[in-house]
Amino acid sequence: MKLNKGEVTRQNILETAQKDFAELGYEAARLEAIGEAIGIKRAAIFYYFRSKKELYGDVFAHIHESLIRHSKERLAGADDPWEKLMLLVDGWVDYMVAHPTAARLILRNCANAAHPEDYSPTFSGSALQMMRDIISEGVASGRFAENSSMHLVNLLSGSILHYVCNPEQLGDERPYRPEDPAEVANFKLVLRRTARAIVDLQ
Amino acid sequence: MKLNKGEVTRQNILETAQKDFAELGYEAARLEAIGEAIGIKRAAIFYYFRSKKELYGDVFAHIHESLIRHSKERLAGADDPWEKLMLLVDGWVDYMVAHPTAARLILRNCANAAHPEDYSPTFSGSALQMMRDIISEGVASGRFAENSSMHLVNLLSGSILHYVCNPEQLGDERPYRPEDPAEVANFKLVLRRTARAIVDLQ
Repeated sequence: MKLNKGEVTRQNILETAQKDFAELGYEAARLEAIGEAIGIKRAAIFYYFRSKKELYGDVFAHIHESLIRHSKERLAGADDPWEKLMLLVDGWVDYMVAHPTAARLILRNCANAAHPEDYSPTFSGSALQMMRDIISEGVASGRFAENSSMHLVNLLSGSILHYVCNPEQLGDERPYRPEDPAEVANFKLVLRRTARAIVDLQ
Repeated sequence: MKLNKGEVTRQNILETAQKDFAELGYEAARLEAIGEAIGIKRAAIFYYFRSKKELYGDVFAHIHESLIRHSKERLAGADDPWEKLMLLVDGWVDYMVAHPTAARLILRNCANAAHPEDYSPTFSGSALQMMRDIISEGVASGRFAENSSMHLVNLLSGSILHYVCNPEQLGDERPYRPEDPAEVANFKLVLRRTARAIVDLQ
């Protein structure tokens, strides 16, 4: 599908805005700078997005559409709830490793949860709903333990964001590159063990 | 220990600044508003803190001193690495539940990791080092598996922040109050099972 010039500009604005919102936060990101980075004037941005607020919302919508599309591709053909849960978790790790800016922006949005101006729970609702649905399916079929499934969603999704955003927090003695394939494999194993420990019937 | 008037003002600035930085982010927080909230002028803040930047750093130092003090109290007398790890995890859950503003600010700082202007890994270094030391001790004594201990630090610390900051992300069907004692107990059990699954020798 070839995009026309207007669609290309819109995509460029979304991608530059994603980077600036992720690095600087909503307030500090400047539409002037976003326009400048792609060679258009600030005013031209308003041809595509009515306001900074709308642009911010559309950046999230753009990330989540792409994450959901990627997740559905990974799950295609799978049937067993445990297999589906692992495919989804691995898919999210791969997506966030490939899109660290998206991870950073979502993490920033998590910190905004008490501040409704800059936050909407609907941003990540549909992606998290996919995981909740798989867990519910496992519980309904008697395969998964029921009691802690809600915290499992938090644990898995939150730790994937931290894996990508915070290699520094592990200290100088053991830095890692989140995109290193060996590290990705190691981290996926940790998540697999975690999920197993929580969903297993005790 | 009774604080004198200057010390009380300094504490008030730190606490109000913590709240504003957590809710609004570094850039959007305003020294005028912080001063106004405690009845002093913006200029008076500079009597205690040389700059907004220094105030921001001191807010983090204040949180981490109090978290480390709290953590050391919890660990007092414990000897076994598994017991120490669980005391530390439970202590961090309790601390963050009691100080949701601190959790939010730390989460915001995690999102800033790529943006050295607003981020310093040293902010949380000493607290995370406590956990790393306990895990190293468990590995050295042959009690804990070695391979994944670094990701365990990420998993436990990150998920505690998300537990406190993001009950909304779990959707309308199952909201929870992070400070609900039954929910805290449930979440601690999830973390205990997670840690067990990762540190156990396979």
